[in-house]
Amino acid sequence: MTGKDAFAALPVGKTVTVRKTVSESDVYLFAGLTGDLSPNHVDEEYMRKTKYGRRIAHGALIVGLMSQASTKIITDLPGTIVSYGYDRIRFPAPCFLGDTVTVTYEIVARDEAAMKTFARVTATSQRGDVVAAATHILKVVE
Amino acid sequence: MTGKDAFAALPVGKTVTVRKTVSESDVYLFAGLTGDLSPNHVDEEYMRKTKYGRRIAHGALIVGLMSQASTKIITDLPGTIVSYGYDRIRFPAPCFLGDTVTVTYEIVARDEAAMKTFARVTATSQRGDVVAAATHILKVVE
Repeated sequence: MTGKDAFAALPVGKTVTVRKTVSESDVYLFAGLTGDLSPNHVDEEYMRKTKYGRRIAHGALIVGLMSQASTKIITDLPGTIVSYGYDRIRFPAPCFLGDTVTVTYEIVARDEAAMKTFARVTATSQRGDVVAAATHILKVVE
Repeated sequence: MTGKDAFAALPVGKTVTVRKTVSESDVYLFAGLTGDLSPNHVDEEYMRKTKYGRRIAHGALIVGLMSQASTKIITDLPGTIVSYGYDRIRFPAPCFLGDTVTVTYEIVARDEAAMKTFARVTATSQRGDVVAAATHILKVVE
């Protein structure tokens, strides 16, 4: 029962962090592969006239960094574990190109019968602003 | 009041779709820039031994396609409109490399005072499986 062993290794309180400077190349590759070329992300001149003043990263890119953290917390665990979903993702402050983001991923609840874990995930910039927050759900499937 | 004009152009029922074949290069670029190199996404031999049988795309990559759809629905509208967040994202079925995904984005509710729109977003594979579903929130900020 490798899946049960993996689930046992994901107690409430287990925490990982990942960090990355969100570069222009990250945002431009992300724009290209998702097709989201909103001026918010790729038009510096346009953004200069808004209250933000410059280009901001895609929220979904920060969700991708949350995904890295969820993979880190299950590294080398046996069985198959998948992302079940996210609840209530919010982007309270902008993440500018060049910002260094720290993602903290902490397991805060477990559903024993369904072998799901619920994590509070917070992405914070070097300014201390929360640029994204969510609840993420992992599920042990086998 | 350009923001109000933009908000007026986003009535309940307005719908857009976007489509993309999710390629190996999409998944590998996404893995590289997010740092999520889970075997679920980049280890064909590992996945062959699981119930899935092969590599699956990152859920957050499908969220990126939802982001493309949200940008499409506001294309050429005046003012500044940002992604406020997502509620209840779920990944009911796997999206395999090579799957063609259709994302349907439909505005289903509005918060007039806060100038927010709420959209039902569904990503469906060529098999008819829902690979991701969510509620997305756009906010007119100025």
